[in-house]
Amino acid sequence: MLTQRALVVAGIAGTIVLNACTSGGQRDPQHRTSVGRDSAGQAAAPDIERPAPSAADPAFLEQFAATNRFRLGLPTSIKPLPGGRHVLFLRSGPRSFVHDLYEYDIASGAERVLLTAERILGGGDEKLTPEELARRERMRLSSRGIAGYDVSRDGSRILVPLSGRLFVIERQSGQIRELRSTAGFPIDPRFSPDGSTIACVRDGELHVTDVDSGNERRVTTGADRFVENGVAEFVAQEEMDRREGYWWSPEGDRIVFQQTDTRGVERFHIADPVNPEKDPQTSPYPRAGRTNAAVKLGIAVIRGTFDGAVVWVNWNSQQYPYLARVDWSRSAPLTILVQNRTQTEQALLEVNPVTGDTRELLVERDPAWINLHDPPRWLPDGSAFLWTSDAGTDERLELRARDCALIRVLAQNAPGPLTNIKLASLDAARNRALFTASPNPLETRRWQVPLDGSAAPSMLPSSSDPAVETLEVAPDGSSWVWTSDRFDRSTQFFVGTLDRDRAGELRSVAESPAFRPKAEFTTVAPAGSNVELQAVIMRPRNFRPGVKHPVILSVYTGPGLQYVTAAPRGGLLDQWYADHGFIVIRVDNRGTPGRGRDFERAIKGNLIDLALAEQAGAVQALARRYPEIDASRVGVYGWSFGGYFSAMAAMRRPDVFKAGVAGAPVCDWADYDTHYTERFMGLPDANAEGYRASNVLTYCKDLEVPLLVIHGTADDNVYFLHSLKMTDALFRAGKHFEFLALPGFTHMVPDPVVTRSLYGRIAEFFATHLADDPR
Amino acid sequence: MLTQRALVVAGIAGTIVLNACTSGGQRDPQHRTSVGRDSAGQAAAPDIERPAPSAADPAFLEQFAATNRFRLGLPTSIKPLPGGRHVLFLRSGPRSFVHDLYEYDIASGAERVLLTAERILGGGDEKLTPEELARRERMRLSSRGIAGYDVSRDGSRILVPLSGRLFVIERQSGQIRELRSTAGFPIDPRFSPDGSTIACVRDGELHVTDVDSGNERRVTTGADRFVENGVAEFVAQEEMDRREGYWWSPEGDRIVFQQTDTRGVERFHIADPVNPEKDPQTSPYPRAGRTNAAVKLGIAVIRGTFDGAVVWVNWNSQQYPYLARVDWSRSAPLTILVQNRTQTEQALLEVNPVTGDTRELLVERDPAWINLHDPPRWLPDGSAFLWTSDAGTDERLELRARDCALIRVLAQNAPGPLTNIKLASLDAARNRALFTASPNPLETRRWQVPLDGSAAPSMLPSSSDPAVETLEVAPDGSSWVWTSDRFDRSTQFFVGTLDRDRAGELRSVAESPAFRPKAEFTTVAPAGSNVELQAVIMRPRNFRPGVKHPVILSVYTGPGLQYVTAAPRGGLLDQWYADHGFIVIRVDNRGTPGRGRDFERAIKGNLIDLALAEQAGAVQALARRYPEIDASRVGVYGWSFGGYFSAMAAMRRPDVFKAGVAGAPVCDWADYDTHYTERFMGLPDANAEGYRASNVLTYCKDLEVPLLVIHGTADDNVYFLHSLKMTDALFRAGKHFEFLALPGFTHMVPDPVVTRSLYGRIAEFFATHLADDPR
Repeated sequence: MLTQRALVVAGIAGTIVLNACTSGGQRDPQHRTSVGRDSAGQAAAPDIERPAPSAADPAFLEQFAATNRFRLGLPTSIKPLPGGRHVLFLRSGPRSFVHDLYEYDIASGAERVLLTAERILGGGDEKLTPEELARRERMRLSSRGIAGYDVSRDGSRILVPLSGRLFVIERQSGQIRELRSTAGFPIDPRFSPDGSTIACVRDGELHVTDVDSGNERRVTTGADRFVENGVAEFVAQEEMDRREGYWWSPEGDRIVFQQTDTRGVERFHIADPVNPEKDPQTSPYPRAGRTNAAVKLGIAVIRGTFDGAVVWVNWNSQQYPYLARVDWSRSAPLTILVQNRTQTEQALLEVNPVTGDTRELLVERDPAWINLHDPPRWLPDGSAFLWTSDAGTDERLELRARDCALIRVLAQNAPGPLTNIKLASLDAARNRALFTASPNPLETRRWQVPLDGSAAPSMLPSSSDPAVETLEVAPDGSSWVWTSDRFDRSTQFFVGTLDRDRAGELRSVAESPAFRPKAEFTTVAPAGSNVELQAVIMRPRNFRPGVKHPVILSVYTGPGLQYVTAAPRGGLLDQWYADHGFIVIRVDNRGTPGRGRDFERAIKGNLIDLALAEQAGAVQALARRYPEIDASRVGVYGWSFGGYFSAMAAMRRPDVFKAGVAGAPVCDWADYDTHYTERFMGLPDANAEGYRASNVLTYCKDLEVPLLVIHGTADDNVYFLHSLKMTDALFRAGKHFEFLALPGFTHMVPDPVVTRSLYGRIAEFFATHLADDPR
Repeated sequence: MLTQRALVVAGIAGTIVLNACTSGGQRDPQHRTSVGRDSAGQAAAPDIERPAPSAADPAFLEQFAATNRFRLGLPTSIKPLPGGRHVLFLRSGPRSFVHDLYEYDIASGAERVLLTAERILGGGDEKLTPEELARRERMRLSSRGIAGYDVSRDGSRILVPLSGRLFVIERQSGQIRELRSTAGFPIDPRFSPDGSTIACVRDGELHVTDVDSGNERRVTTGADRFVENGVAEFVAQEEMDRREGYWWSPEGDRIVFQQTDTRGVERFHIADPVNPEKDPQTSPYPRAGRTNAAVKLGIAVIRGTFDGAVVWVNWNSQQYPYLARVDWSRSAPLTILVQNRTQTEQALLEVNPVTGDTRELLVERDPAWINLHDPPRWLPDGSAFLWTSDAGTDERLELRARDCALIRVLAQNAPGPLTNIKLASLDAARNRALFTASPNPLETRRWQVPLDGSAAPSMLPSSSDPAVETLEVAPDGSSWVWTSDRFDRSTQFFVGTLDRDRAGELRSVAESPAFRPKAEFTTVAPAGSNVELQAVIMRPRNFRPGVKHPVILSVYTGPGLQYVTAAPRGGLLDQWYADHGFIVIRVDNRGTPGRGRDFERAIKGNLIDLALAEQAGAVQALARRYPEIDASRVGVYGWSFGGYFSAMAAMRRPDVFKAGVAGAPVCDWADYDTHYTERFMGLPDANAEGYRASNVLTYCKDLEVPLLVIHGTADDNVYFLHSLKMTDALFRAGKHFEFLALPGFTHMVPDPVVTRSLYGRIAEFFATHLADDPR
């Protein structure tokens, strides 16, 4: 499922109008009566907007698709190097998925290409295994060329995996060496802390390679069809935001690795229905209530006296089956964060790396669930660590002693409620922590706080407009890159040093859209509720007051993602929909993050009822406030959880929603994965009524409004089965619906041609079904 | 692909009105202005019919689905026994798929239950392997209970396979014995000629069991993942109308068996997308132009001196890779009929069963292709045989000497052109052959002809109305069952003896529909053509002259099946569509059978252009003739080849067709199987332009009218890939379409709920899109 860890808090009442480029003159008045499906040809009532594809920028979708939503050409995988002089990053051309590796010189502001895939491969094509493709899907990567790299801690060496091969570049000399292997495709290659050794997983076994000699050896044993070493299991990658399956010791003499046993886990097969001669892909997939992968943690000694020995970590994995975080920092103990199955309890354990024994440092509980945050961040002397948690409370950034005793809360409610706290840098020498957090639900900004408690957190100065910022700091704190996203412009990438917070800027070569979204931010209390929800309203760029417009409610509505922010995901696309002649509305209902523990936890046990009531109620309340909203012509549209919501809205609230588009929807939560589903829903046996009430199949018999269902046949996150079950139930109930099966596509749809066709089709669907006043 | 071997020839000019029950009073006149999508509410023009679901019998679909299209309750697998006293048959209840075995006593007219599945299994459920389910799909069987049986030649023993077990019933005593085995599921069990032994295939190997002792032994060796003994390969079952993979010698001392090697054949995987945890099904599937299964023929000695020895038959399988027919009759040589890959040449070979050597008896050629007919039928003294062929000529029934010299043509053009010749009985003692054949394109009747050439064939007297008859004769010619299908009533099953052609009648317990189709048969020359095509026109039962009706063109249009006959497949359903307010039209274009060699072969090399031109031209010509046909509102609808045609018609002839429904359509012929496709199209490399021109993908960019595509995801005949490729190309081209994926369904859709929803949806689709005059 989509997740987000970087946005906003606290209800702002009142209204902010952000933007906007009100380009475009008056619409041709002739146009307005020539559209719609009134075949009798009478003139439309003068105060009714009839949406039309021709009203929106016809070139937009082509550009949107070709630029991968204007993301191609943006710097990515940004790493400021120690020493404060250089920044590494990847960037592709504005219409290319092939990324090259660049180095930015802070002093001169000059950038240079360090490495291109073409140079290494000599023009040959990349080869990716299905496993690597799945891993990139987990990471939502559709890039090609150099998709990632690692840098040694001192910044002198760069490791680049490419097409199943590994290359090491000496930054000083520019020398490139390939590390050859006779074993399989390398997964997740990374340097040891001193840069002398590389570890990676091949054929399910952890391997290490001495960079100087090129000698590789296998560290682990026992991999087979069910057992894998060194790779994070599916739910860790997809739901815990943990992609690593091994961790170097600070001295590089040991590696902690995960051993995953999927015996007993259901194996899902995905055939390629367009190419049935291809072998189906098979992956273990733990459905809610069913068997999870069994995870063990081993510590392999790879240097010194006990070379080759493996110590297994002992913890109560019956009580805490989920391994959520592992950390092994210099001068600090090896710690692991484990969770119980229902995620109502987590324990931070210290591991004795010699015996494998563990002892509890901290146990936290929440009657609903605990969200995962960063692992502990230790002071260089190992005397204390920073800890972020929202267990049983609103989110807090704490300083805790070696024995876990709370020293002080560094950030929680000064100057205001802060949410979405994400630590960026712990700089003990300068007595400060840098983090990003949301001072209000729309923004995420950069903050600093002294470790000694001498002052409250203070926001770092930047834009006076609402912004969403991120922060990446060099390991030695000497430089950083911060990005700023605002509603009315493209992302900027500022480079900061200890002298100047804007010492330079990484260049983006991304194309700019021909227009920018035009948004009114506001809050709304759904009818019958006193909870103020964040909302954003987007109008056609040539909006004419006094005309009743049909509405598209653009939704996600699920846990883990805010949809109303100063830099909303998909805002441009929503503006493009609006330009057809719609009012596009977004609302963040309870259950979404950024508003504190209770707001978020209100959905425990039922993933739909509250969202449905609040979204529907919000639309009705907004319609009473804004005369341009035609409450009799409201459509609803979303993907993933938003697709699930859209299907439910169409079936259950036809009084509000007259048409729905459900992209890659979940249907029955019992078919979605354990870690996500059970976090919010509990176990199916313990909450049968909640699962029934949250199941789309329960309501298929009620569908009476047009519904378009869209799903990729190769989706291995929300499997195609969800849409098939839904459409089959609808069909058997004699219900009309439209269905787009996207053959071979997964949960992402990166293909430009498909992207273009898809949004064109959706706009046409709403234009058709929301054209007329239904009464 | 669907095939048909039982219908009609020669153009009848003029018009026959067959039937019908014009039940139902005047339609409520209120109704006609209340339907359609005229939201402005003006009255419809008085001379335009607007179809409406409520106009048709609302109970029909429910009954049609629950009775499996009124086929449940009809006698089936009918076998008149030698001796002229009894007939065996299977029958289910009117709404049950569970068949029981019955014996009919000709003298008394009484029937009794011989065996029920329940009695044998004691109430337990049947268990079928995926292979057996696939075999039943090949045979278009959806029955349960006793799905088939075999009778010993003398009629004393019956063999019943049930749920993976074999039972032998002694007819005299009623005793039932189970033949147990430790090997796998028995495929195709059959008696030896003397009834003492049973052969079947288990785990890919041929086994024989002595009935008295119950001892089973394996006859063949070498089966593995790719090699199978005794089972007909996919194209033999699906396209050659040959289900057997082994044949007993007349004395029962040898078995001829096929050995199939699918190494090198593409293997198609079908996953169950709704249940991805199930293992995908994998089957070899030879696409046009690609590697076929390699077929060998072995002769195993199972009794006598050389018991256990296998002799392999030598023929030039490079020249003749297809094994089409095998025959080993008493006093006759073992013969095989083999074909070259393009099916332009076939050779009848005599096999020496001791050495395996072969010699040519007959080689036949046709520059287009040769259709397969029955194997040779030998006179009891082995001096001559009957032979049916249409190689290079119209179909002929010939008497040929032992050395294959033509003695005389028994049937071809007396009294008129006869097509669809199918031999039913060779009765040398009575100097006659009995066969069924079509004296005109609408009918198939029973004929007899003296073997000595003393007279021309004469039709056996029966109904004076046009009828489609079949004939099943006891091995000794002593009795027979003939069925008569007519447009206006249910099938009748008459029992005949040497004394009386209607000595009795097998009882049907099938339900009767509440109405019968109302049809006008006619012929039509498409505009610009002088070829008279057979056509049938069905009007609403409450048809009102003077009103312009929209049209549904109901199509198959492909080789091997006539769609315009006196007992048309799906006629009832078409009437139900008509009753919504449509004129339903069927036309048999060139390429369809029953009209002689040249009519059928005219499509060689291109499967669509001629059909498209003639169907479109026929509709236009009929519209000029019948004022009730609204040529501006024509839809097209079909399954399988008919689905392919419908998609093509929608894309290529929007001037004629304003909406299309394509069920389980072929998309690209390069994805369909070798034996069917290459027969008509030749090899892809040799006819690239024909394949391109016959490929739906070539025209997806042109679609401008509404198209509904329907396909079962588990279809292993026309694979789901066809519809996915089509809808994906349409989607990428930005074309609108509707798509119904039927999860888990194959080429047949027997599920009653789905059947009901499906036809309701199709009727609604046409009612919506053909409601208004488009101009």
